[in-house]
Amino acid sequence: QSSVTVFGVVDLAVQHLRGDGHLTRLESGALNGSRFGFKGQEDLGGGLAASFHLEAGINADTGRGRPNSINNVVETPGDFISFNRRSTVGLIGRFGEVRAGRDYTPVADNHTDFDVFGNSGNADSSLLTQALAIGLVAGRGVRTDVRASNAVVYVLPPDLGGFWGYGMYAIGENNNEPLPGFRGRDGGHRGARLGWEGAGLNVALAYGKSILASQDNLENVHLGGTYTWNDLQFFGQLSRERTTIDGVRHTNDAGALGLRYTIGVQAIKAQVVTSRIKRAGMESLGATAYALGYEYNLSLRTALYGAVVYVHNNARGTFDLGVPVAPGSSASGVQAGMRHSF
Amino acid sequence: QSSVTVFGVVDLAVQHLRGDGHLTRLESGALNGSRFGFKGQEDLGGGLAASFHLEAGINADTGRGRPNSINNVVETPGDFISFNRRSTVGLIGRFGEVRAGRDYTPVADNHTDFDVFGNSGNADSSLLTQALAIGLVAGRGVRTDVRASNAVVYVLPPDLGGFWGYGMYAIGENNNEPLPGFRGRDGGHRGARLGWEGAGLNVALAYGKSILASQDNLENVHLGGTYTWNDLQFFGQLSRERTTIDGVRHTNDAGALGLRYTIGVQAIKAQVVTSRIKRAGMESLGATAYALGYEYNLSLRTALYGAVVYVHNNARGTFDLGVPVAPGSSASGVQAGMRHSF
Amino acid sequence: QSSVTVFGVVDLAVQHLRGDGHLTRLESGALNGSRFGFKGQEDLGGGLAASFHLEAGINADTGRGRPNSINNVVETPGDFISFNRRSTVGLIGRFGEVRAGRDYTPVADNHTDFDVFGNSGNADSSLLTQALAIGLVAGRGVRTDVRASNAVVYVLPPDLGGFWGYGMYAIGENNNEPLPGFRGRDGGHRGARLGWEGAGLNVALAYGKSILASQDNLENVHLGGTYTWNDLQFFGQLSRERTTIDGVRHTNDAGALGLRYTIGVQAIKAQVVTSRIKRAGMESLGATAYALGYEYNLSLRTALYGAVVYVHNNARGTFDLGVPVAPGSSASGVQAGMRHSF
Repeated sequence: QSSVTVFGVVDLAVQHLRGDGHLTRLESGALNGSRFGFKGQEDLGGGLAASFHLEAGINADTGRGRPNSINNVVETPGDFISFNRRSTVGLIGRFGEVRAGRDYTPVADNHTDFDVFGNSGNADSSLLTQALAIGLVAGRGVRTDVRASNAVVYVLPPDLGGFWGYGMYAIGENNNEPLPGFRGRDGGHRGARLGWEGAGLNVALAYGKSILASQDNLENVHLGGTYTWNDLQFFGQLSRERTTIDGVRHTNDAGALGLRYTIGVQAIKAQVVTSRIKRAGMESLGATAYALGYEYNLSLRTALYGAVVYVHNNARGTFDLGVPVAPGSSASGVQAGMRHSF
Repeated sequence: QSSVTVFGVVDLAVQHLRGDGHLTRLESGALNGSRFGFKGQEDLGGGLAASFHLEAGINADTGRGRPNSINNVVETPGDFISFNRRSTVGLIGRFGEVRAGRDYTPVADNHTDFDVFGNSGNADSSLLTQALAIGLVAGRGVRTDVRASNAVVYVLPPDLGGFWGYGMYAIGENNNEPLPGFRGRDGGHRGARLGWEGAGLNVALAYGKSILASQDNLENVHLGGTYTWNDLQFFGQLSRERTTIDGVRHTNDAGALGLRYTIGVQAIKAQVVTSRIKRAGMESLGATAYALGYEYNLSLRTALYGAVVYVHNNARGTFDLGVPVAPGSSASGVQAGMRHSF
Repeated sequence: QSSVTVFGVVDLAVQHLRGDGHLTRLESGALNGSRFGFKGQEDLGGGLAASFHLEAGINADTGRGRPNSINNVVETPGDFISFNRRSTVGLIGRFGEVRAGRDYTPVADNHTDFDVFGNSGNADSSLLTQALAIGLVAGRGVRTDVRASNAVVYVLPPDLGGFWGYGMYAIGENNNEPLPGFRGRDGGHRGARLGWEGAGLNVALAYGKSILASQDNLENVHLGGTYTWNDLQFFGQLSRERTTIDGVRHTNDAGALGLRYTIGVQAIKAQVVTSRIKRAGMESLGATAYALGYEYNLSLRTALYGAVVYVHNNARGTFDLGVPVAPGSSASGVQAGMRHSF
């Protein structure tokens, strides 16, 4: 009578990272985020189905979980196991799918799907393309940079002539006492993503707005795509983030180009990402990152992999890979690991 | 060789709650508590069986767990995943069942089984019937209001002419240093429940005593029953809670009447709950709550549901549904959601 | 497509412990540590296989997890569920096995495998044989006494003429700012274990070094073995721990002798453990513990069990079983419980 799939990923890599110092560490999820979960779908007849999905991120190097946010504003301290990656129940029909709970934001999915490294490991392009959301500038990111709690998601049905898309409305449950200068319900998130797939092409435009009482709302527009031609797959991203921190308007314009070349069970990956963050009345900062990766797939579930990354900061840039750098210094990283899915 | 059932519930509802203000939120477990767990039973031959049950409550709106108590006195901060709902191992035989671990208290089960809303969501009658245990008065509840850690449970065998029952002895492990005025082992709980089922009737009497060093022990006597007549099921509850807080004797006399009308895959539910809390030398406080609910069962595992609730406080009453109210003000709530079991 | 085994143990016992006072409690894992987990192995062809193992310890008396350490130096507060027992991914081939993540240290495995009580419950010999690592002296133990995070493990292949073994290199990830007097990478662990099995004998030598910035590294050499002769199994251990705490050299020389007598589904276990901790310029302290145990195996998965333990402290010894004792006082414990594996 029970109907559940237990699934997961255990992915561990040794990383050597350089900045103004250096660090060797065992890191979890450098190819795909380590996780475990439970999911299932029930056919209800008449074209209807119910689905659920519970997915917990883990730090496989220590056996612990990943930080999470209950109210989309404050990150809970510690890295305790929770279904922080996804926790949803939904109904699927001819109308598409409606689901509720904690889920990925549409704009974060756009960043991930069009990054040749899938936004994992030291070659993750979102370091630059989501610099404001992650909080790499002035330490003021948002908790809805990747996922949102208290969300309702609507997904378009398949077979719309190649078009696909979904939207999210996440409730800000922190609104009992509006603050002065309050710009909406603190902790809310609104997002949508619309794509078209066909003829080897998959392109999508996404938008996300994270609503904050403590600063101006953070908005992100992202356009991404892949084009597959035989064993070659091309990746492209254009992203603009905007927010106002302590009265200073910040705009992050970033882009990335990537390539995946598949040779049988092997794959070579390359990517260039660049970002320039304009700050009203202050000097811009930015960086360009160059990454080269390799995968050897022992099976559909198991891969050995490696990557090298070099981050070139401009005069004000302080982007690092885990070891802090002074403005303008460069950072680099090497990783080699193994990923197993179950 | 492995012999385990993975099971759970994901239940999410949108609630709109009114008190002296209002709040819209996504809430977990408004029909049945969201959870996941592992359970199993092993036939040992000769009428013996071993069983285990691990069940973790989750807040499906955020992916996190539910607060828990290690020593039955202090609630652990944060809502981290633990097998807070149940964590037991037991032996079943002709003598009945003996099990140990963390489990539901007998008196809490009586409250739940004879509430037409199963003590879930905004129409939960235990808001009034367990007001002292939950801590709605003077903020002084007990951690053993629903479950107890460090417990041993004995369950009567089946086939006793319709009689059924069980008892719990939970150890208070905080007794190394007896406090002045100490009334037993702090954190202990004693409870029992005896019922009779037959001829469409199921009635049970339950008693629970939570032992506290910080205040007088909290006692609860509860009588409940259901009577099923064709598509109609009637629910009734009578409850008395007693404790002394800061030298003031508190007695909560409460009762509820409910009805469930099943129409094919649909069900209509109605319930009235009333409570009056007498306080020695002070004015009484109390409230009456009116609730109406609806279920549409898409399958045995999946339901869509809704409910409306209105709480009428008496002059001193401050019962609310999530948005605080001034004494004598009323509260109300609406919810609509989906529950899926796996 | 999913390929995972869900497994676990729920083990609970009632313990009555005596020291300078007494305590009755429900205790988890008195025969085998309570746990749940996910594990699996994938055949990759050509003699290769991938494996993963996620295992979370639980306190079945409360439903919660067990403390853990992220950086091998500081224990995370609280007992939240994490895969604290093991969290690894590995590759198995003719060369043996290489795996990474959080795992048991080789020297801790030696202590466990050659303790007739498997280092569980009140008769656990590691109380004395690992007194310095556990922190029973001067409250200065190590977090890598049983397991280490951020580890790489290499296991010898089978069929080496009865020889078997493995080694661990756990990274100390706390090394960004070397401290004065720093003796290596804080939180690192190095360990190895080499054994030989044949002719009813299984003997192994193990070594472990936990690297600490706050005090001298802690080293442990352990020699252990079992000899099986019909229904009798003999256990022996010799252990030396060494560290320097606040400038005082500490050396713990300990040993144990145990016996397991199997009579059909029953087993009788007996063990004597003795420890003497020399402290440069201070008086030695130590104790001898006598334990007698019994198991009744209802099946391969389910057992009822009991044990009695008596700890005789020497003049300075303060070893206890959960209830503190003054120097030279004795401690004792009785337990009776049930273990079920799934």
